[in-house]
Amino acid sequence: MDLSTILGIVAAFGLMIMAITSGSGLTLFIDFAALTVVAGGTMGATLVHYPFREVMRAFAVSKKAFFHTEETPTETIEALIRYSNKARKEGILSLQSVVSEIRDPFFVKGVQMAVDGQEPEAMKEMLDREIEYIMERHGEGADIFVAMGTYAPAMGMIGTLIGLVQMLQTMEDPSTIGPAMAMALLTTFYGAVMANVLFIPMSGKLKNRSQSEILKKTLISEGMKSILAGENPRIMEQKLHAFVAPKFRESFFTKKKG
Amino acid sequence: MDLSTILGIVAAFGLMIMAITSGSGLTLFIDFAALTVVAGGTMGATLVHYPFREVMRAFAVSKKAFFHTEETPTETIEALIRYSNKARKEGILSLQSVVSEIRDPFFVKGVQMAVDGQEPEAMKEMLDREIEYIMERHGEGADIFVAMGTYAPAMGMIGTLIGLVQMLQTMEDPSTIGPAMAMALLTTFYGAVMANVLFIPMSGKLKNRSQSEILKKTLISEGMKSILAGENPRIMEQKLHAFVAPKFRESFFTKKKG
Amino acid sequence: MDLSTILGIVAAFGLMIMAITSGSGLTLFIDFAALTVVAGGTMGATLVHYPFREVMRAFAVSKKAFFHTEETPTETIEALIRYSNKARKEGILSLQSVVSEIRDPFFVKGVQMAVDGQEPEAMKEMLDREIEYIMERHGEGADIFVAMGTYAPAMGMIGTLIGLVQMLQTMEDPSTIGPAMAMALLTTFYGAVMANVLFIPMSGKLKNRSQSEILKKTLISEGMKSILAGENPRIMEQKLHAFVAPKFRESFFTKKKG
Amino acid sequence: MDLSTILGIVAAFGLMIMAITSGSGLTLFIDFAALTVVAGGTMGATLVHYPFREVMRAFAVSKKAFFHTEETPTETIEALIRYSNKARKEGILSLQSVVSEIRDPFFVKGVQMAVDGQEPEAMKEMLDREIEYIMERHGEGADIFVAMGTYAPAMGMIGTLIGLVQMLQTMEDPSTIGPAMAMALLTTFYGAVMANVLFIPMSGKLKNRSQSEILKKTLISEGMKSILAGENPRIMEQKLHAFVAPKFRESFFTKKKG
Amino acid sequence: MDLSTILGIVAAFGLMIMAITSGSGLTLFIDFAALTVVAGGTMGATLVHYPFREVMRAFAVSKKAFFHTEETPTETIEALIRYSNKARKEGILSLQSVVSEIRDPFFVKGVQMAVDGQEPEAMKEMLDREIEYIMERHGEGADIFVAMGTYAPAMGMIGTLIGLVQMLQTMEDPSTIGPAMAMALLTTFYGAVMANVLFIPMSGKLKNRSQSEILKKTLISEGMKSILAGENPRIMEQKLHAFVAPKFRESFFTKKKG
Repeated sequence: MDLSTILGIVAAFGLMIMAITSGSGLTLFIDFAALTVVAGGTMGATLVHYPFREVMRAFAVSKKAFFHTEETPTETIEALIRYSNKARKEGILSLQSVVSEIRDPFFVKGVQMAVDGQEPEAMKEMLDREIEYIMERHGEGADIFVAMGTYAPAMGMIGTLIGLVQMLQTMEDPSTIGPAMAMALLTTFYGAVMANVLFIPMSGKLKNRSQSEILKKTLISEGMKSILAGENPRIMEQKLHAFVAPKFRESFFTKKKG
Repeated sequence: MDLSTILGIVAAFGLMIMAITSGSGLTLFIDFAALTVVAGGTMGATLVHYPFREVMRAFAVSKKAFFHTEETPTETIEALIRYSNKARKEGILSLQSVVSEIRDPFFVKGVQMAVDGQEPEAMKEMLDREIEYIMERHGEGADIFVAMGTYAPAMGMIGTLIGLVQMLQTMEDPSTIGPAMAMALLTTFYGAVMANVLFIPMSGKLKNRSQSEILKKTLISEGMKSILAGENPRIMEQKLHAFVAPKFRESFFTKKKG
Repeated sequence: MDLSTILGIVAAFGLMIMAITSGSGLTLFIDFAALTVVAGGTMGATLVHYPFREVMRAFAVSKKAFFHTEETPTETIEALIRYSNKARKEGILSLQSVVSEIRDPFFVKGVQMAVDGQEPEAMKEMLDREIEYIMERHGEGADIFVAMGTYAPAMGMIGTLIGLVQMLQTMEDPSTIGPAMAMALLTTFYGAVMANVLFIPMSGKLKNRSQSEILKKTLISEGMKSILAGENPRIMEQKLHAFVAPKFRESFFTKKKG
Repeated sequence: MDLSTILGIVAAFGLMIMAITSGSGLTLFIDFAALTVVAGGTMGATLVHYPFREVMRAFAVSKKAFFHTEETPTETIEALIRYSNKARKEGILSLQSVVSEIRDPFFVKGVQMAVDGQEPEAMKEMLDREIEYIMERHGEGADIFVAMGTYAPAMGMIGTLIGLVQMLQTMEDPSTIGPAMAMALLTTFYGAVMANVLFIPMSGKLKNRSQSEILKKTLISEGMKSILAGENPRIMEQKLHAFVAPKFRESFFTKKKG
Repeated sequence: MDLSTILGIVAAFGLMIMAITSGSGLTLFIDFAALTVVAGGTMGATLVHYPFREVMRAFAVSKKAFFHTEETPTETIEALIRYSNKARKEGILSLQSVVSEIRDPFFVKGVQMAVDGQEPEAMKEMLDREIEYIMERHGEGADIFVAMGTYAPAMGMIGTLIGLVQMLQTMEDPSTIGPAMAMALLTTFYGAVMANVLFIPMSGKLKNRSQSEILKKTLISEGMKSILAGENPRIMEQKLHAFVAPKFRESFFTKKKG
């Protein structure tokens, strides 16, 4: 669970609901027709902009903004060192037995390729090409949320214009002007909330998540190549530490001794 | 047919029409004079910005956003492998017989050049220069739609200013103010809809289409060179797989066996 | 004449005038004081931004957006081939006789340098430096129009603010409020029209024109070097065709035969 | 203390308070509910956008905009020259005694590595990697403030929309319209002040501070390498002067003589 | 004197004053409290953004937008040729006598270094580093004006919000609404004028001035190196002409003969 995303959304919506309920009933601000125009219109514009499959994939990827057990790079490095030790002691084929304990399919693929007897360079090349496609896909996902963040306020404004035109055409009874305009403003409100609490911030979080996932996969790619090449685990650790922040550079070997 | 574009436009317009008809008649929102000012003014500004021929070409290219039978790269790769096998068995001239079954003129051109006895390098160079021009032309087309997406709301605002000035000059009868202002807002409404449902999203779709078309043409260029050079079809397949996403990398040879 | 620019401006202004006259007299929208504030203020800000001479040059260059006999690159290439043939048959000095028939001063300069016995490399270097300065000057011209396109709406808003403040201070007679506010909005209207129909689109057209002029001058520079080096006209044609779009690549020699 | 930041904030807020109190009581502009919506909503959107830890770190880093004893580069260069002289006279191990007088932990780390017998190249590489991480962290901090500078006005607008919708629904008593709308505008006011007096300018100051801190750390990294390599202090000074502005290039040796 | 800057400011302000006085007294638009909020708030935000010293330096540099005797590059080139001739005839030390006639301190520094017996390469390196710092300082100055151009309208809006909130809270007497709102709009007016007539255009002019000053200093750096290396003045002139526009390339030697 990404508590920061949950917390942020709960905080932003909670404060808005507080502000609303302190001045009026919440029902004043709930209007399914208005919501449908803004959400549906945003979705429509997004489907004109992007192919259907990519939009669906973006929604699938967006779950990462909410559910994401962040492993520190340390865990990945430690796993790689353990496998390296195992491979050096019991032979590369012994890694077959660890495949079942790994959850990340990318890691599984790397270990499987090693067990299957791939050359280190060929394996690294294939894993790196995979990383490139993951990066591209993540980038597209974040772009789609940015696009939704620009279409949502535009659809909100279009909805308000529809309401305004209707109100202005039927202004005979002045007592209806206020409520009609309130209704008209609701779509602008929905568009602004969707863009600034959901779409734009989530696009940012996805970029962030992508960075940490790419880092982890890069460590796996580098590490598996090192294991397959039979490098000393300490040397491998030093190489991998070059990819991570100083606070994650505590040595596995120092720790074990301690 | 690009269902995503059609679906997006139908959804966005459908929801707007629903929102309109639930509050008033649709006729309130149809005003040909206003539509002419926004659409014509946008067209005028675009013609000052771009040469006539490029604007026409952009409209021609824009059909790709609607009608586009997406071939997966797999189909292109499989066709290339079939031609490669044929050329190796029956000689390069035998490809003359397949020209008639190919629909893509670019592919026809490549095969024809091969049959005509071009050198592999020279043929690839000519096909690649062609790809470059296609990319440039597509890019210009997408740019023109972006420009229209900025001129349309500006023309909408200009139309609204015209209506407001006229309304403000003749405010004697208060009962006409509402309808006059409603009319004035219609151009802003048209400009916002054109920009956010048509021009800007279509510019995005065109960029997307261009990418997949360029990918296909790159596969053809690489593949025909490989065929002309007499390379093994399996090696050619491996090379071509490097250009496509993992899910399109299933081997023709594995499948055939399966 | 660039019909596209003329057509675009006529269309945009024509539709606006139609929209205006269908609702009121055109005189409502003509106010020289307001026009002076917007146009003069835009000019003032532009003169603070750019040196006087560069602003004047931008206006001079802007004529290209209106008057521009577009030669296709084919004409330039054909002329170069004719001169190449002549130079090979009658000697380089024979080109003196063609100088008088060339209208483009850049082309004249190139031919004159060839006749004057310049080395091919030295001549090309001087012509290319000239091309660089032309590019820079054109780029500056387009930038000045972009700047005017941002100052004009700002000046329009400043004019409207002046009118609003004056109106709000003297609101005693309600019947004057409407017309006063109409007047105030006129400057916003002028600023929006100037920016979106003239300045921004013309900046785009100038960039476009610059590209095709630079292409032509590049062909001349490359061609004259080839002529001076005594290259075969067919080889020169092949080299020059690499710079132009496929549709302009029909060979002079094929055509002559045909 | 960074007097410029303090002075700027005091001046901007002071003038606003003056402007407010000259026309009404200050209490009119203090509304904790409104403040909570804008500040809390901005914080919420920021937490959706960035991971919790990074947001906290940005706040920690932001103290640099207020508290920052700016050492001129001259002081750092002079310290390095003193240590260089000491190391040349009394041996590199003698630097152990100066560790306690250095306040910057980065400088301590560099000196400690030198005393511990690291190779010059290896030490410089590790210090430079550290500098890179500091740069990245500072950059992220500045980015987070930029994001808050875009979310704050959006949250202000959302708050105003909530207030407007409530006001428009309950317009029966005209005397309440004014105060209700005044309340509604307060959130827009808060959002604009937060963005334009705090978040955006502080993002700028952080970038500035980062630059001068990175410069200092680069001098230390270059200098310690030079000391470890046993270079002449005068040559080291010349090298380090290449990194600083002319006014900071007065030589330590000239000054000492003077 | 930079007549273009003066003319632009006089024209823009003159037209605004004309527009104001034609509709009301000028005093309506003068309000020191409002001016203080906008100018002071802009200054405050700028001081939070940039260090105090850099802001002061930007104001000092901004004088260049007004007072700037533009020397054409021709004058600089001619001076260099004269010194080159003198150095070749009477020895490099004879340049000591011309130092007093040069006004540009950078030029003085270059000549002095030549007389002091610096190596050509070392001198050029030191002058070029100086040029780099001048470029950076100019760039920062222009950036500060761009920042002021974004803070000024924001402060104007904040001032207007303050005025609106106060007006809306005390709407009992309808006759005061107009004047109160007029006062509130004044800060928006001031912000727009400051940004669009002063700050943004002056930032542009400073960039322009910087370019021509950097060009002159580059000519001096290149020229002094050439003089110190004892190059032929004609060759030096050819080299220097490569840096300037064609119209400034008339040869000193041709002219002298003429």
